[in-house]
Order: sequence, then C-alpha cells, then structure tokens
Amino acid sequence: MNRIQLLIIVFIIGFYLPLSAQTDDMVKEDFQGSLVNQPGKEFPKVNSEGRVRVRIEAPQANNVQLDIGGVKYDLKKNDGGIWIGESAPQDEGFHYYQLNIDGASVPDPGSKYYYGAGRWGSGIEIPAQDHEFYEMKDVPHGSITENIYFSEITQDWRRNFVYLPPGYFENSEERYPVLYLQHGSFEDETGWASQGHANLILDNLIASGKAKKMIVVMDNGYAYKPEAMQNAQDGHPKSAFEEVLIEEVIPNIDKKFRTKASRAYRAIAGLSMGANQTMRIIMNNLNLFSYYGGFSGTSNYPGNEKIDTKTFLNGAFEDADKVNEKLKVLWLGLGTKEPEVFLKTVGDFKEMAENKGISYTFYESPQTAHEWLTWRRCLYQYAQLLFK
Amino acid sequence: MNRIQLLIIVFIIGFYLPLSAQTDDMVKEDFQGSLVNQPGKEFPKVNSEGRVRVRIEAPQANNVQLDIGGVKYDLKKNDGGIWIGESAPQDEGFHYYQLNIDGASVPDPGSKYYYGAGRWGSGIEIPAQDHEFYEMKDVPHGSITENIYFSEITQDWRRNFVYLPPGYFENSEERYPVLYLQHGSFEDETGWASQGHANLILDNLIASGKAKKMIVVMDNGYAYKPEAMQNAQDGHPKSAFEEVLIEEVIPNIDKKFRTKASRAYRAIAGLSMGANQTMRIIMNNLNLFSYYGGFSGTSNYPGNEKIDTKTFLNGAFEDADKVNEKLKVLWLGLGTKEPEVFLKTVGDFKEMAENKGISYTFYESPQTAHEWLTWRRCLYQYAQLLFK
Repeated sequence: MNRIQLLIIVFIIGFYLPLSAQTDDMVKEDFQGSLVNQPGKEFPKVNSEGRVRVRIEAPQANNVQLDIGGVKYDLKKNDGGIWIGESAPQDEGFHYYQLNIDGASVPDPGSKYYYGAGRWGSGIEIPAQDHEFYEMKDVPHGSITENIYFSEITQDWRRNFVYLPPGYFENSEERYPVLYLQHGSFEDETGWASQGHANLILDNLIASGKAKKMIVVMDNGYAYKPEAMQNAQDGHPKSAFEEVLIEEVIPNIDKKFRTKASRAYRAIAGLSMGANQTMRIIMNNLNLFSYYGGFSGTSNYPGNEKIDTKTFLNGAFEDADKVNEKLKVLWLGLGTKEPEVFLKTVGDFKEMAENKGISYTFYESPQTAHEWLTWRRCLYQYAQLLFK
Repeated sequence: MNRIQLLIIVFIIGFYLPLSAQTDDMVKEDFQGSLVNQPGKEFPKVNSEGRVRVRIEAPQANNVQLDIGGVKYDLKKNDGGIWIGESAPQDEGFHYYQLNIDGASVPDPGSKYYYGAGRWGSGIEIPAQDHEFYEMKDVPHGSITENIYFSEITQDWRRNFVYLPPGYFENSEERYPVLYLQHGSFEDETGWASQGHANLILDNLIASGKAKKMIVVMDNGYAYKPEAMQNAQDGHPKSAFEEVLIEEVIPNIDKKFRTKASRAYRAIAGLSMGANQTMRIIMNNLNLFSYYGGFSGTSNYPGNEKIDTKTFLNGAFEDADKVNEKLKVLWLGLGTKEPEVFLKTVGDFKEMAENKGISYTFYESPQTAHEWLTWRRCLYQYAQLLFK
C-alpha cells in the first residue's frame, strides 16, 4: 500500500465516521438504572448522553415503542421475547413517558409513577449537572403532611400537601411564613412534593441558611362549583380556585398550622397554568400576599396581542407605584428551551413591566424546556428571596 | 301442550339455567366505574356481582388478558381495536391486578396505583357491605405526615408515615398514645394509609367515640444492615427491622411528636409478615409495649409443627401469668377464606394459648381472604380495644 492508497483509506474512514456515530451502534454503553425506578427494578436505564433505555418482556407482541417527549422509538425483540431499545439523548431533568405495546399506551412496569399529562404514569430522571440542590442530603428534614378538607364552595373533599420546615414538630411556639405553590395544567397537588422535590429543595436551602424557614402549601388548582359544568361555555367550566384558596384554604391553614398570618409573610407562586392563576390571584388580593413567583407563565397567556395595562387583569398593573410598593418581589422564571408561546408571553409581560417602570426579577434556566427541572430551579431561586 | 310436556320443558329450562348463568352472556350489566380509578377514567368498572370489567385500546395486539387474583381472563377485541372483558365475581374489598398485553404484564392505565405484590401497579375496589367504616365522612380528619430519617443501622434514608389524630396541630399540649402498625410481605410503608385506609378508619372510630385519639406510625418492615447481603444464607439476609424500630424509630417518634412515651400507651400490630415480625418484637420488648395485634399471622408461620412453648420465641409464652400480666390485649384476626397455612398457624397459636391459659381475643372477618378488607376490619376491631 503506497501513501496515496493510505490517504484514500483514511479519507474514506473519516468520511463515514460521523455518519455511523449517529446510528444505534454508537450508543454509549454506560447505562445505569434510573434514579426513579421501582425497588429492585433494573430498567429503565439512563446513559451519560441522556438516552433512556427501556426493556419489557412481551413475547407475542408485534411492535413495542418507547414514547417520550412526544417522540416514539421502536424497540427490538430478542430471541427470548424481550423488547429493548433507547431514545435519542434527552434534556437533563424529569420527563413523563410511556410504552406503546401493539397500540396500547401503558406505564412502564419498571418506573415509579407520577401524576402529570393528565394521568398517573411513568417518569424518568436524567441527572442534571446541578442535581445537588434537589438531592436528599444529611441535613434536617421538614415533613410533608396531607391535609384533607371539605370545600363548601366545590361541595367535595379536597386536599393539599403541606411542607412543615425542620423543627416544626419539636418546637411548639415558633410561627412561620407561608408560600402557596401551585402545579401546572394536567398535574395535581402531588407534583411539587414528588417530581418537584419542593421539600428537599427547601430542606437544603434552609440548612445552608439561604432561605428562611417557611411552610409551603401545595393545593389542587382545579376547583369547580357543582353548577359550573352545566354553565360551562365551550367546554370550559369557570374555575373556582381563587375562591377556594382565599376563602377556604388560607383560613384553614392559618387556623391549623403555626403561621404568621399577614400579607408580609405570605407568598404565592405557580408553574405554567399555576403561574397564570396565581398572578391573577395576587393582583386581586394584594391585601393578602406580598411575593409573587411565575415559573414559565404569566396571566397574559396565550397572549396573541401585546399587554394593554388598562384592561389586563382589570388594570392591576396600571399604577406602577402601587405595584412596586405592594409586591416586595415580582419574580419570573423561564427555561431557555421553552416553546415559543411561553417565551413570547413572558417576554410581553417583561416588556410591559419595563415600559411601566414595574420592578421584577427574571431568571433563565439553562438548557431546559417546559419541564420540572426548570421549575425546581425556579423554586430554588425564588425561595431565597422570600420573607427577607 | 299437556301438563306432562309442560313439566318436561320446565325441568329442562331449570336444568340448563344454572349452567348458562355462568357464561358471559349472563353478566349483570350494572357496571360502575371503580372507586379507585384515575381522575376522568371510565374503566375499570365493577358490577354488583363483584366482576371487574377492563377496557384498553390495543389495535395491533393478538391477545389481551385481565390478570386478577392469580387468574387470567381473556378479553375480546371489537372492530375499533378496543379490548374489553370481565372477570368472575371477586371477593368484596381491595385486590391487586394487572393487564397482560401479548405477554407483557403491565398496569392498567385506568386505575390508580398501589405498592403490593412487590410492585407499583393497579388496584381495584369491590365495594364491601360494611364499606362505611373506612369511608371518607364528614368528621374531623387526622393527617398523614411523611417522616424521613437516616438510619445509622441500615446506613440509608428511610421513612415512615405518621397518622396524627384530629386536633393534633391545633392543640399544642395534648399527648397521645402510639400504635406501630406494619404492612405485609412485598408491601411497604405506603400500604396502610393508602389501600388500608388506616387514617379514615381511625378518623371514623375517633369521631364516634369508639377509639381513643392515637398516633399511628407505619414504617417499612424491610431493613438490613449493609453487611447483611454478603452474609445472607439461602438468599435470606438477616432482618434488622427490630433494631431499627426499637433503637431508632421509637426514640425518633417520641422526640418529634407529642407522644405518651411509656409501655402503657404503646401498641404494636401488623398484617401477615408484619404480624409475624411484631409478635416477635413485642415478646422481646415487653418493657416497651402492652398491646399486640396480629392480623392474618403469628410468629409460628409457616408452622409445620405444633408450637413448643419451651423453644417458641425463646420461651416467651412459657410463663402464662407473665404474658397475661404484661399484654393488656393479645389480639388475633383472620379472614374466613384465608389460605390453609394461615388458618393452621393462627389455629396452632390459639391452641397453644388455650392450653397455657393465655388470654387472647380472636376475630373472624367474614368472606374475606388474605387481603386488605380483612386487615381494614382487623384494624377497626383492634383499635377499639387500645389504651382503655
């Protein structure tokens, strides 16, 4: 082989290498069991590229797929009737997913289950570079308490989960400020203390002295009066969540727990639909709250037009001096990879605030979309500003 | 038609009726959505015979089955690619089940999920005639609190769920007795406050004045020292649960919550494996507890031989006077349809107690097997005898 032949071979290899790197053969084989697997389950697994590999025994199936982030990946069947395969690299953080077995969309029997996307189903965790802030650490831990109550407004049993900070039970005197923290659409009151890790985020912040001890109340943002369904227009029944929160949840919490029951010690925040709801609620109730956090959302969603402060939320942002005086923190957060509608509506809100001279804090979560790692980071940032 | 012909026809109809009643054609069409469906899900359904009907879209599947109570029922596919079918009548109460799609055993996407049988998976509720005692009613409700702790013994993070009776939070002085309540094999600390409805059972008992206000602690009965796996004999690592409960859980609970921290105000109970574990624990620690409840189990399980009190639990039942003096209540419960091994071993224990003159209370749950309705009823009965 002469030098020309050698160069040709090197050129050919060099030409094909990048292509073959994109085939399944080049998947990095450093998979480890997912952090949110059921006890004793080996699969699903995640590799250092963020690929998700699933495995399921289905000897008589014709077609099995992994369905994650709206994309379906075909699995391959081995001689033992076991289907196995993996996704493209996923963003860091938590994602909902399911398996599709011959057309049936079902949870993966290997994963733990979470409520989101309107169903209890599988979740997967791609370890984030900054995972430490939401991890279980050797620090004093608060408690999550399930609080059941009957709503006279909706005429049904409801519940919230209440984070009580470390020391709440041992100490019988100390009173704490309260953050009301809401989930997004097609989620429920379980999200923040489960896939959201709100309790661990607060435990870690409190242990490091970065956040004040506080109570966090996580209720269900879906609330309707019995007659709402009949009166629903275009299939959208009128929400009674603001009434439930203001007239029932807050008095119930202030009665049951050792809260500091005044506006100086009350914050509210929410993600996506919850950001939209809670912005409306705080602007209607400035006598009750002094801190607002909007994680991936504002009340101008879906915002086809720019905000007109004369009409937006009944003119609540018209008087900038009043807003600046009443809202000790007006906080907005967004992932850099969010869908356009969120970038646009939150952007419009910021533009309005700047034009009016309304003070706000804006945070960008690097490389995350409209998902839980964005919201964990938002809570981590926002909670540090509260009650100081 | 003469009278003889008529009698023959009546006889023939009478002969075939019972047979045809067992075919699918005679399934009673009064199905209603299961009480433990996911929000908004129509299926699974249950009818007044206790049959479970499931439905799943799986257009390309060859074979779909409902797998409940160890029996598999074939579903039928309609033109829309939807599989539907029902089980034989089931016992009243709660059952774990799954779907089998072309050989893949998966949760039903319509049901809520429970930990049992060693997995998170589907559950179904066949309404019991006596359902009222574990139902959500308009009475004061206690709270379930998740309590995280680090175990020095097992060197890992563990948790228990703690039922705090109505008024615990509002009242800052009152102290309460404590019941330690354990799950069975292949279950975990979530069972009693979820499919067990321990909180609602206690709420209802307390509201009606039938039980004293008490704290209930539900921990995880699986606990192993780090070296246990290496030293495991025949794949059975040595349990460290007794050490964890006595040295870590009880001191932690007595420090954190307003308990009455003495043996007169401490009870212990468990179901199946938990009954076995807790009988051993109380007999080793009579200085700590004075009430025992064994739901579908005793420590002589699996009991191939009759109990010899000289050797059984190191002679703990040898001195009947001491046992009668120390155990204010020795309570045993069993479902009438339990498998032979439980009928036999609990029967052997009762025989031993009678021979020795040891006082005990025995309860039979009518028409239930080794399942949660038996244990809900056991808790309902047992809790009424505590701390009085």
